[in-house]
Amino acid sequence: MSPSTVRTAGTDSQRTEKPGGQHPTTPATRRWLVKLERWLVRRMLIAIGNPPVRITLPNGDELSTSESPPIAQVKFQDRATLWRVLLDPNLHFGEGYADGKLEIDGDLVALLETIDRARTAANHSGSLVPSWLLRRLHPARTNTRSGARHNIHHHYDLGENFYQLWLDDEMVYSGAYFAEPAMTLGDAQRAKLDYVCRKLRLSPGESVVEIGGGWGALALWMAREYGATVKSINISRPQIAYARRRAKIEGLDSRVEFIEDDYRNLSGQFDALVSLGMLEHVGAAHYREFGRVADRCLTPAGRGLIQTIGLDRPCETSSWIERHIFPGGHLPTLREMADIFEPSGFSILDIENLRRHYAQTLRHWLDRFEASAARVATMFDERFVRIWRLYLSGSCAAFTTGQLQLFQVLFARPTQSQIPWTRAELYV
Amino acid sequence: MSPSTVRTAGTDSQRTEKPGGQHPTTPATRRWLVKLERWLVRRMLIAIGNPPVRITLPNGDELSTSESPPIAQVKFQDRATLWRVLLDPNLHFGEGYADGKLEIDGDLVALLETIDRARTAANHSGSLVPSWLLRRLHPARTNTRSGARHNIHHHYDLGENFYQLWLDDEMVYSGAYFAEPAMTLGDAQRAKLDYVCRKLRLSPGESVVEIGGGWGALALWMAREYGATVKSINISRPQIAYARRRAKIEGLDSRVEFIEDDYRNLSGQFDALVSLGMLEHVGAAHYREFGRVADRCLTPAGRGLIQTIGLDRPCETSSWIERHIFPGGHLPTLREMADIFEPSGFSILDIENLRRHYAQTLRHWLDRFEASAARVATMFDERFVRIWRLYLSGSCAAFTTGQLQLFQVLFARPTQSQIPWTRAELYV
Repeated sequence: MSPSTVRTAGTDSQRTEKPGGQHPTTPATRRWLVKLERWLVRRMLIAIGNPPVRITLPNGDELSTSESPPIAQVKFQDRATLWRVLLDPNLHFGEGYADGKLEIDGDLVALLETIDRARTAANHSGSLVPSWLLRRLHPARTNTRSGARHNIHHHYDLGENFYQLWLDDEMVYSGAYFAEPAMTLGDAQRAKLDYVCRKLRLSPGESVVEIGGGWGALALWMAREYGATVKSINISRPQIAYARRRAKIEGLDSRVEFIEDDYRNLSGQFDALVSLGMLEHVGAAHYREFGRVADRCLTPAGRGLIQTIGLDRPCETSSWIERHIFPGGHLPTLREMADIFEPSGFSILDIENLRRHYAQTLRHWLDRFEASAARVATMFDERFVRIWRLYLSGSCAAFTTGQLQLFQVLFARPTQSQIPWTRAELYV
Repeated sequence: MSPSTVRTAGTDSQRTEKPGGQHPTTPATRRWLVKLERWLVRRMLIAIGNPPVRITLPNGDELSTSESPPIAQVKFQDRATLWRVLLDPNLHFGEGYADGKLEIDGDLVALLETIDRARTAANHSGSLVPSWLLRRLHPARTNTRSGARHNIHHHYDLGENFYQLWLDDEMVYSGAYFAEPAMTLGDAQRAKLDYVCRKLRLSPGESVVEIGGGWGALALWMAREYGATVKSINISRPQIAYARRRAKIEGLDSRVEFIEDDYRNLSGQFDALVSLGMLEHVGAAHYREFGRVADRCLTPAGRGLIQTIGLDRPCETSSWIERHIFPGGHLPTLREMADIFEPSGFSILDIENLRRHYAQTLRHWLDRFEASAARVATMFDERFVRIWRLYLSGSCAAFTTGQLQLFQVLFARPTQSQIPWTRAELYV
């Protein structure tokens, strides 16, 4: 790509309000530019393995490099969006979609799955710009104590009214466990809460510390169904307030304590430690710290369970997700997670990859979200709806295609001799 | 420790034939030396956390730093052995025991468990010499192709007559799966073979490659019980010969091929890859190579299962085990094993820690070994019996106390979408 090309795109991007993007002054330049764009789009489609997708350019031209019928059609409304996507699709596909400058005809999840699969097979992001340069342009946010508070506020403090529209009744915002694929979302979330308790072999009177307790579903489940006493820590003030109200209503507030604080301030010793869908916000630089907290908080016979979205290989969080959904987010590989367990000498007892369950969870969330999309638009705006639609659809596609994993990791000290003989009891 | 002390021990060690070790010339030197030895033994016992063990010095003096009644008594027959153990217990406890210079009164497994537990809690090896220096004195052997052949020959080519005395009828020399703790060894080994096939979801007509097939039990099980065709590779010539005879007798030689070769020479593509108790011989430097073989040999929908003894934290193989049992052996942590999976982008689907099952397997092996000890002594000699007794007892203790782990790792490509919905079907 020549510098002049970049300048053309740069100039163009300042006039994105005008539809069609027919800016170049002379007809010859215009023809040359359209030719170049057609060539670049074809080149991108070939680079990412010719997914069965049809592209509509701003001037109405249609393009596909696959012989199969297209899964969906991607329509660029203006030239600036097209050029941005060519330069950095990981960021600007989402930006264009959020702004309505890039429309999708067809099933969004199916489109994203197709592109995921093709890109993986071709081992190419589709970007014209090398990925190392893009990473330098979009540095990730950090999870110092104040950074973490800001980052968590961004996502979780959108208000329970919003999350209530599409989460289950228990308000669980992490992957469910579909013991049977046809289960309802609510049943699958309850099955997950129970599965976690059984993996931890929780018994009446035991104490549990929960790191990142969301709206309180698991802590309340442990107290109500297993007779445990639970201390649940979280830095989202609205979530803590909601969880405390629930505990009071259920009469469980003497046994479940919701604390608004950073997990690094935890003290005390507990029989079990649990953390669902929170490690994604910790950041790899803080895994050793997380492990020290677990080491400090678990009794000699204590057990721990961490559920986290994870990766097969290290990969930067998509800059679009970092910007709009999870600032400071980092998805671990199992190798990176060793920083939690190894320094304290914890034994890994069981790791289960539940990625299909998160894909199914996301299908449910997406269906419910779409059913409430008009409501969400009045609460926020259309752009917010499009951002969340893309986030939920993209996550669903990524779990389906194996780009994302969901790990449930059970651990204990090696000196813990009460580990069950087999896993059979989990499945009776 | 002063250099003169070392010299005293060194001089002494050349006269180990004389019992009692009363060598120092003057009575004053002799009294001083006995005092020093008592002090050093006490210091060692305190350093490793005061295990309930009684030590008998060469002059008959008895010592213990624990208030609990002793689990067992360790009797030093001569001064040289005592000094060697003080300097490097990881090597010389075994050497002294093998030579009959160090006798145990009481249950050997219970003694080793007690010492393991105390040393772990105290976080001290008990050695007078820093561990980094000991490691430099005993460099591990390498697993180049010729090195591997030599190392494997050392352990596995002792003759099937020897292994038949204490292994089960199927001749499986890796941790069994006790679906019920009271199972016989034979049933537990068959349960393991079947469990592995079910984890791999093996179906009739599928092809399997096995890396390190021992005497052929798993390969034959897969062909006989699951209708698979199996290629099993191994560099132990006697094992290959034995396995081929079995295949012929069972009429399975058209479907099971036993190949005498290095796993790095494997070619072809298979529906499943399996390796039980072989990764321990690969060496961490070769894990990437192992992963490349798995990547090359598995079809896009292929599944792999590796069972290996492992560690929670990196730790050098004991120099005694390296010298007498497993030259070139290296026990991986899960972090180290990531070198197998990450570069090829495999997804970890399931990791199960079966350490209690290996402890139970070793109890069976040890009981059977003891029942045949006289026979083993006529096949080899008394020293060989003592070396193997210590190896089996020490391994049993290490799995019981959590020093050793047994990992079963199931993996597949992330694009493999036929992964089971839950693990329930393994337990029906």
